[in-house]
Amino acid sequence: MLIVMSYTAGQAEIDAVVNAVEGMGYKARPIPGSERTAIGVLGNTGYVDDVVIRDLPGVQEVIHVSKPYKLVSRAFHPQSSIIEVCGVRIGEGCPPVVAAGPCAVEGKEQIIKTALAVKAAGAVMLRGGAFKPRTGPHTFQGLREEGLKLLAAAGKESGLPIVTEVMSPENVSVVAEYADLLQVGARNMQNFDLLRELGRIRKPVLLKRGMSATIEEFLAAAEYILAEGNPNVILCERGIRTFETATRNTLDLSVVPLIKEMSHLPIMVDPSHATGKRTLVSPMAKAALVAGAHGVLVEVHPEPEKALSDGPQSLTFQGFDKLMEEIVKLRQFLGFAG
Amino acid sequence: MLIVMSYTAGQAEIDAVVNAVEGMGYKARPIPGSERTAIGVLGNTGYVDDVVIRDLPGVQEVIHVSKPYKLVSRAFHPQSSIIEVCGVRIGEGCPPVVAAGPCAVEGKEQIIKTALAVKAAGAVMLRGGAFKPRTGPHTFQGLREEGLKLLAAAGKESGLPIVTEVMSPENVSVVAEYADLLQVGARNMQNFDLLRELGRIRKPVLLKRGMSATIEEFLAAAEYILAEGNPNVILCERGIRTFETATRNTLDLSVVPLIKEMSHLPIMVDPSHATGKRTLVSPMAKAALVAGAHGVLVEVHPEPEKALSDGPQSLTFQGFDKLMEEIVKLRQFLGFAG
Amino acid sequence: MLIVMSYTAGQAEIDAVVNAVEGMGYKARPIPGSERTAIGVLGNTGYVDDVVIRDLPGVQEVIHVSKPYKLVSRAFHPQSSIIEVCGVRIGEGCPPVVAAGPCAVEGKEQIIKTALAVKAAGAVMLRGGAFKPRTGPHTFQGLREEGLKLLAAAGKESGLPIVTEVMSPENVSVVAEYADLLQVGARNMQNFDLLRELGRIRKPVLLKRGMSATIEEFLAAAEYILAEGNPNVILCERGIRTFETATRNTLDLSVVPLIKEMSHLPIMVDPSHATGKRTLVSPMAKAALVAGAHGVLVEVHPEPEKALSDGPQSLTFQGFDKLMEEIVKLRQFLGFAG
Amino acid sequence: MLIVMSYTAGQAEIDAVVNAVEGMGYKARPIPGSERTAIGVLGNTGYVDDVVIRDLPGVQEVIHVSKPYKLVSRAFHPQSSIIEVCGVRIGEGCPPVVAAGPCAVEGKEQIIKTALAVKAAGAVMLRGGAFKPRTGPHTFQGLREEGLKLLAAAGKESGLPIVTEVMSPENVSVVAEYADLLQVGARNMQNFDLLRELGRIRKPVLLKRGMSATIEEFLAAAEYILAEGNPNVILCERGIRTFETATRNTLDLSVVPLIKEMSHLPIMVDPSHATGKRTLVSPMAKAALVAGAHGVLVEVHPEPEKALSDGPQSLTFQGFDKLMEEIVKLRQFLGFAG
Repeated sequence: MLIVMSYTAGQAEIDAVVNAVEGMGYKARPIPGSERTAIGVLGNTGYVDDVVIRDLPGVQEVIHVSKPYKLVSRAFHPQSSIIEVCGVRIGEGCPPVVAAGPCAVEGKEQIIKTALAVKAAGAVMLRGGAFKPRTGPHTFQGLREEGLKLLAAAGKESGLPIVTEVMSPENVSVVAEYADLLQVGARNMQNFDLLRELGRIRKPVLLKRGMSATIEEFLAAAEYILAEGNPNVILCERGIRTFETATRNTLDLSVVPLIKEMSHLPIMVDPSHATGKRTLVSPMAKAALVAGAHGVLVEVHPEPEKALSDGPQSLTFQGFDKLMEEIVKLRQFLGFAG
Repeated sequence: MLIVMSYTAGQAEIDAVVNAVEGMGYKARPIPGSERTAIGVLGNTGYVDDVVIRDLPGVQEVIHVSKPYKLVSRAFHPQSSIIEVCGVRIGEGCPPVVAAGPCAVEGKEQIIKTALAVKAAGAVMLRGGAFKPRTGPHTFQGLREEGLKLLAAAGKESGLPIVTEVMSPENVSVVAEYADLLQVGARNMQNFDLLRELGRIRKPVLLKRGMSATIEEFLAAAEYILAEGNPNVILCERGIRTFETATRNTLDLSVVPLIKEMSHLPIMVDPSHATGKRTLVSPMAKAALVAGAHGVLVEVHPEPEKALSDGPQSLTFQGFDKLMEEIVKLRQFLGFAG
Repeated sequence: MLIVMSYTAGQAEIDAVVNAVEGMGYKARPIPGSERTAIGVLGNTGYVDDVVIRDLPGVQEVIHVSKPYKLVSRAFHPQSSIIEVCGVRIGEGCPPVVAAGPCAVEGKEQIIKTALAVKAAGAVMLRGGAFKPRTGPHTFQGLREEGLKLLAAAGKESGLPIVTEVMSPENVSVVAEYADLLQVGARNMQNFDLLRELGRIRKPVLLKRGMSATIEEFLAAAEYILAEGNPNVILCERGIRTFETATRNTLDLSVVPLIKEMSHLPIMVDPSHATGKRTLVSPMAKAALVAGAHGVLVEVHPEPEKALSDGPQSLTFQGFDKLMEEIVKLRQFLGFAG
Repeated sequence: MLIVMSYTAGQAEIDAVVNAVEGMGYKARPIPGSERTAIGVLGNTGYVDDVVIRDLPGVQEVIHVSKPYKLVSRAFHPQSSIIEVCGVRIGEGCPPVVAAGPCAVEGKEQIIKTALAVKAAGAVMLRGGAFKPRTGPHTFQGLREEGLKLLAAAGKESGLPIVTEVMSPENVSVVAEYADLLQVGARNMQNFDLLRELGRIRKPVLLKRGMSATIEEFLAAAEYILAEGNPNVILCERGIRTFETATRNTLDLSVVPLIKEMSHLPIMVDPSHATGKRTLVSPMAKAALVAGAHGVLVEVHPEPEKALSDGPQSLTFQGFDKLMEEIVKLRQFLGFAG
């Protein structure tokens, strides 16, 4: 940690900061500059909760060198983590995986039909929402536990593990009964009670980046889960909120290689929610894999024009088949078996 | 709703859209243009969940004219709502109010001392966090139910109603035992289960705008609460996330007059979390009141340099006294008794 | 400057950085931490162009303590600057000023009529655009030099100094013939050739913040002008670009008190371009003054519905009269003569 | 164009809008809704400059269906444009190209050495800046015309066409003497005088997207160039400004397939300026090509740690060789000769 003093700060103020640092059990190393003094802090292991310092008179700025996470960082855990979801291995060195399915479980026929179709095309996991987060309360909210049952049945019938969103700490146990991978949606990335609850189970968690979460906040959110004892976390980039409205979100693909430097956790990409536009899903899914993503989640629907949510970004079965063919070739290009 | 067809769309595609619109029970009104056809939708009362239409072949764009909220809108409820919190009236025509207190309840002495100080200075409500949302898990998380008790005791001793954050649906009943106004934090603005739960109680709710929530999403979130039956919602602008890092957030004061046009709900401003910088709190609090806010929430701490969270933005007792003096004069200037 | 080494950096890499720092004529002060070493740089006067250091092996991050500007900073020039425009004094301690006029000069009658009206209402400066920056080339581009002449004539007739935008270095001399205050528009804030050219004249310059400029970039842009020798710069906040589309831009009022801490230059606010919505101009103009702005620029048009640009944000004469009455009272409240 | 009336608008106001529309020579088609009336506008060819309408009493919102550009749009020009730069063909169906070189021309040896190295590795164009846009005035500003000469000499020696930035309309002719492709930097995307000047030459122009430019503004800027008569424009995505600070900008790769839908102009990607981080350049360059970009611009420097600008994002010769090997394979994978 580096404490930058204001240019008007005098010796008394510098001394007060030095005392406060030492009072925290650390060492203070003043670095006098021509315009202002800065004070380095030594002896800390990891992030220093700076509030004791930040507000002393004369303190201009506190610059953190250590990060608010540790367990998720590659510094702490240099080896890449491989997360298993019912035998499907996700992570560095494993063939990138594809999870596919409809945005929402709408009915038995729809989900089973889709499960079989995506399985046939090469998906290794089935996605589908039973609990749907909708911007306003007057639109379809999901089939809830009934939806979980249908999803599980479809998973069984197709032989695919299932990933589905859990929205609330109290739903964690019921969702964990049915799901093989529990998803935390973007809007819940900082629902800390939910994260802690998921930290207390052992089933793997797919943590989506908040729509305005910095990479630092993203990793700190994952830290909540690992801190409670669950190491099985897969990160997922799904687009961030920017000024651009031509796409639903802005897919931030450079976080893929960047997170692979900063963390040992696997990272997937959701090009469907990121772009919101069917014609962009395929190019961005492939770009994601070439950028190094460990997998993609793709929305697929038997009849997107009749989907009760997110129709415009869902691929048809035919579209998904085509994408899978290209992904098989891409995996070979990347050095994996197709 | 206006459906814009692609310039390549032909008669068959236009007909399919017309049929779909009529199948939804609405009327379709084609508007042929020189480059493309647009189709107006008539007969709807309010927002049309467009997914049935959006994805038909040839549809370029769907433009919503109606909004995903109704109960919160001034169109539906032209008269401004006054929300009462233990006799404190908040809303249009009422003197703007000031709620003050520490970011977090840290101990009995701290909270009682602060309650008495802010009361003496002119605050009409005491704020304080018992459940604290922190970016990473290794920092102070709040005193939780113990904190609620201390807060309630301080409220009693000072005669101030209390406002505090509730973070999870399962905590709603315990928080509602102690608090007079339940706050939904920015990170939880789209925690829909929490909003629904708060819609089932009658105590008033202070809904903070999400750090990247559009005004439309903000009002739609409030809609969740009203839709469940609780009309007692106060909105609160607390800064949005932008590229600027010199302030903690970007305080978006123009939403104050804008929301007053769009909604009947009262709107307050939190200049402490918005700016993150003590020296900016006072000018922005006053600017907020002149912009028409129905009140402000200000963080105050007996010894900010020792605060366990958000010290840098907290005012000292002295600083708060000074601000209150200026607010009294400002209220008179605005036509209210001081 | 603080150089943060990667956790994998070894002694050789640290030594290389120390050598590079010393090669630049500075002193290096290693600060060994438990996880990584940081190296403080001493002996610099002001910003260090870090490129020599940033890329050495093992360097994780370079954190600047000094800023890329000096002449504009209050550290360098503690006393607030008062800028005079034809005798109108703008700056700390002076009554906040109002500049008003149409977005674009459209014709002789329009500009003279407006000049007289705003003068009568209390404006002390006339604004109007002769060179208009338009998003696309197929809309009204401004009357150019003819517009300057009309604007100057209207200024003469009403006795108001005039402020108008200059868009290109080659236009600086012709605009400087007519204008009393030369405006750099938001899109040109980093048109460095233009800034340098304006640095070579002595007439005052109104520098608008770029729509995505950080405060640091804003002040660094002003630095270009002062560095060439022209100290007469007035800053102007006019809204920044964010994800919110309900307002044209997001008016970032907290920069007003913040810039007053960081720089000695005066700062004005343009609530018309910031909000893009007539009904928001008046509340935000008043909020700006209470936040401490040294003045506001307001768009006014005799018949906004016939304006060739920016009609929706322009006030009518009647609306402007009303705003000026309120500003007079506000100035008295703030301790100035009305 | 669709005009949405306020819910309080009455018949007189609706009639006034209808009259105004007809006064513009168009037809008005009222669409009465249950809550409000909307009025469709017919008969326009392209974008309607709405200011005559927007501000009439009772008008809530004007929604544009047509865009502020025409010549650049695929609707107007369905066939993809191929732009030639000294025989190098760039566009749909052509092998994606790589332009490489240092950020700034620093000296004869540096630029010639780099030119030969990138040529040997497979680049088909040499980039290098002679006029450098720097945030603050106290850092290296570029060698200017001297730099152009050195760049041209290096291009000659290596047999590579050159691309370099022109910053001001008055520099267009001198830069056009030396350069084969003239670049408009991100900060100048809306320097309309510069765009118009470039529209009057015939040499090709590389137009970089502004750091906060929407796709619509990006295409409208390109429109300025085509409108003056120069059809030879190549677009370039280089990252946009968002809240994320871990990367220099946020590379918005989904604009690549999106722009290919909206416009016939070729689009390249600059992963160096977008990410600002050497380790991210290669994955993002490859992701860009898989997303469909017609080429990439990559910064390469003989000794990045000694670069006078942008060292941290520049590849070494070795790093560039490696990237080119992978790009050759990727081009084959994409169906082109390597």
